[in-house]
Amino acid sequence: MEFNFQQYFNRTFPFWNRITDSQKEEYIQNSFLSNFKKGQFVHDPMGQCFGMLTVYKGQLRVFIQSENGKEVTLYRIDEGETCTLATSCIMDEITFDVFIEATRDSTLVVTNSSYLNRVSEDNVYVQNFIYKQTTEKFSSVMWSMQQILFLSFDKRLASYLYDEVIRTNESSLVVTHDEIAKELGSAREVVSRMLKYFQKEGFVILERGKVEIVNKDAIRKIAIES
Amino acid sequence: MEFNFQQYFNRTFPFWNRITDSQKEEYIQNSFLSNFKKGQFVHDPMGQCFGMLTVYKGQLRVFIQSENGKEVTLYRIDEGETCTLATSCIMDEITFDVFIEATRDSTLVVTNSSYLNRVSEDNVYVQNFIYKQTTEKFSSVMWSMQQILFLSFDKRLASYLYDEVIRTNESSLVVTHDEIAKELGSAREVVSRMLKYFQKEGFVILERGKVEIVNKDAIRKIAIES
Repeated sequence: MEFNFQQYFNRTFPFWNRITDSQKEEYIQNSFLSNFKKGQFVHDPMGQCFGMLTVYKGQLRVFIQSENGKEVTLYRIDEGETCTLATSCIMDEITFDVFIEATRDSTLVVTNSSYLNRVSEDNVYVQNFIYKQTTEKFSSVMWSMQQILFLSFDKRLASYLYDEVIRTNESSLVVTHDEIAKELGSAREVVSRMLKYFQKEGFVILERGKVEIVNKDAIRKIAIES
Repeated sequence: MEFNFQQYFNRTFPFWNRITDSQKEEYIQNSFLSNFKKGQFVHDPMGQCFGMLTVYKGQLRVFIQSENGKEVTLYRIDEGETCTLATSCIMDEITFDVFIEATRDSTLVVTNSSYLNRVSEDNVYVQNFIYKQTTEKFSSVMWSMQQILFLSFDKRLASYLYDEVIRTNESSLVVTHDEIAKELGSAREVVSRMLKYFQKEGFVILERGKVEIVNKDAIRKIAIES
């Protein structure tokens, strides 16, 4: 079955009924589906200006990396959500660049940057959508920043575990210490040390590539108490 | 001499020639000058939604604060620049709040939030200006975040000192250790320790409320070398 761009864009983009029929046609001509395997890079700071991405299936992770390889996750992009940072070249206001990787096998709906640049200059509603999406991500980044700057690490780790339990509805989380460290912008050693402390306290049981939460209330209490 | 809002807005806002004459009139009616003394708060997270601010004279500092009072400067707003975060209530996408203080005696041109909300709903160019301004600040915040996360402290402090020397064109900086700590999101003790190390190395001479840079090249070298 062929993918219906017209229908998808109509459902996804508030500007779709603000652009002309010929702009719609051109927009679709300049859009394509792109598949990425779990772990594959969708965009990196050295790469070219890819395009505007909407996640049709899967999930992306947007992160920054220091010279010595330390990663900090800024936010994730779930199904139905749009990411504008892989087309930051069309926004003069964006002067930073990020890594974007697929955290699951993903199918993206991509509109190429050069067309997007043209249509957003012609149509202020398209442009406004791009800036609105970017502003929304600003909020996500501020949240991450505040987590990193202001919370002590036991609290951050507990928040992470508790949020994952709620999100997945599973008490057994399939995740390595390294993955948690990347998520929280910390070192693997720090994560392992804190998890061992949690295990000793009877909050969790650690297995290879797995964290079992056995005392959800205790984890929650650490997460919310200042 | 009376302040000419019409002229000022025409010079400052790219949307000004996109709004109608009656919108212009209303815009001016809903705008006012506001004076703040150095150190005074312009906006805080507990306060109401103030309005869109353009700095006519002076300078503002935008920062966040943890529960235990630690501050991190996100960016500064200089003369001619606009800040939209004191009117974040009109943007659904902004889910965080900030402190804004005057770092010098300042005169601001303010347009109140309720009118701005109305006109930005009626006129996509006004709305687009607000989101563009916010996106620009996103870049500044990312820069701060990367500084905080990725640079070692000697490098961050050296960068700060070197930037101040360039900015003020003075080798003697009037600033307390506490002010530097707030600027860099660090503790005063850490700043004092590193400054003493710089003094011992002959890079700076410390006096009460003052840092004299005596070896600018050495400071620059620390700042730029990885």
